[in-house]
Amino acid sequence: MTVSLVGAGPGDPELITVKGLARVRAAEIVVFDRLVAPELVAESPVAALRIERDRLTQDEVNALLVAHGRRGRRVVRLKGGDPFVFGRGGEEALALAAAGVPFEVIPGISSLASAPAAAGIPVTHRGLASTVTAFAAHDVESLDAAALAEVPGTLVAFMGLASLERLAERLIEHGRPAATPAAVVSAATRRDERVVVAPLGAIARAARGLCTPALVVIGEVVSLREALAGVRRSAA
Amino acid sequence: MTVSLVGAGPGDPELITVKGLARVRAAEIVVFDRLVAPELVAESPVAALRIERDRLTQDEVNALLVAHGRRGRRVVRLKGGDPFVFGRGGEEALALAAAGVPFEVIPGISSLASAPAAAGIPVTHRGLASTVTAFAAHDVESLDAAALAEVPGTLVAFMGLASLERLAERLIEHGRPAATPAAVVSAATRRDERVVVAPLGAIARAARGLCTPALVVIGEVVSLREALAGVRRSAA
Repeated sequence: MTVSLVGAGPGDPELITVKGLARVRAAEIVVFDRLVAPELVAESPVAALRIERDRLTQDEVNALLVAHGRRGRRVVRLKGGDPFVFGRGGEEALALAAAGVPFEVIPGISSLASAPAAAGIPVTHRGLASTVTAFAAHDVESLDAAALAEVPGTLVAFMGLASLERLAERLIEHGRPAATPAAVVSAATRRDERVVVAPLGAIARAARGLCTPALVVIGEVVSLREALAGVRRSAA
Repeated sequence: MTVSLVGAGPGDPELITVKGLARVRAAEIVVFDRLVAPELVAESPVAALRIERDRLTQDEVNALLVAHGRRGRRVVRLKGGDPFVFGRGGEEALALAAAGVPFEVIPGISSLASAPAAAGIPVTHRGLASTVTAFAAHDVESLDAAALAEVPGTLVAFMGLASLERLAERLIEHGRPAATPAAVVSAATRRDERVVVAPLGAIARAARGLCTPALVVIGEVVSLREALAGVRRSAA
């Protein structure tokens, strides 16, 4: 395989897949997201070229993958979470496909379920939620808040911390009860992980001071945390 | 740690996490789902007690984990996909918490995004879908089909193959266009993986003869498969 789009998982370097780690260890070129654990980048061979993605535009990243892929180099595009869950992996894959460069996608642990899990919250649970809806919340005003308020089960907001107050407001306006349990998980599975729990109507105030990356979870499943967090130890 | 609830991933044994595999290799007792790859179960020490979950009721599984956990044994509960995404991991965790047995949850690659990815379909994609809703579809009549038809973005149905015709019918009745691209991915990431693509109105007929486990994906993102599947090689 020429280019591997590899999901690095939520933060803890041991949460990469066995297959993903094998690709990193065999890489000639690694293009990595800022949020990927340094321990994982360090698993690439010392002779490997390591390129930080954040200094480049998406077009530059695509061009880089295509250029090195065309020369048959073993390129690993190491992405936070999962490449295809709010990861723009599709754009990189399309650029490679358009250029005729063979590639593969190796999934990663998305924070969708793993960040709540780290906080003792299952996103689905028999009797509480048999549906989970994940959405990108960086542009709150463009969201279909009515549909999100109405869909049953758990809501998971990516990039929702910055406009959390407005997000909560819009969901409540459209019918989600202000008393719905909610949580924000910051830096999930990392040593600096922090969790805040509050009703939807108060979650924005409670989460003040938390840092990104952060995931917002809304729904009755959040109430399980109290029972589950007590005995549970960190997976780290 | 006493009891580890470990996600084994979608099928390919190399898609377990590094941390999950370490727990299996150190296990004294492994309780495993039928769908977990035999290669993973075989990674446990030869002296380990290996117990197939499917011969037991959920209550018996819970009791088993509690009993061995109480004795301080290294118990691994190896589950298909992710323990907290339609995996009943919450029920096992609650039983352990109620009994005061320390446990941890090690996430796994859910088929939520990895089964579509194996078929060349990203569940989110800029401009096509910034929301993804996953739901359990084993009881189609109890679903809030109106809300599911209305929520924007990608729909992912777990356990939806058996009643796929009725599921499609209900979504179309409630406003999802019959022309919406849809796919069924059977045995994702395994050697016997199969993918069928058709418009929502014709997907049930197209998917006849496919076997479980199967995931249903509905939404515009399915249309990316054509561009992505050509050059892409299997991740296996």
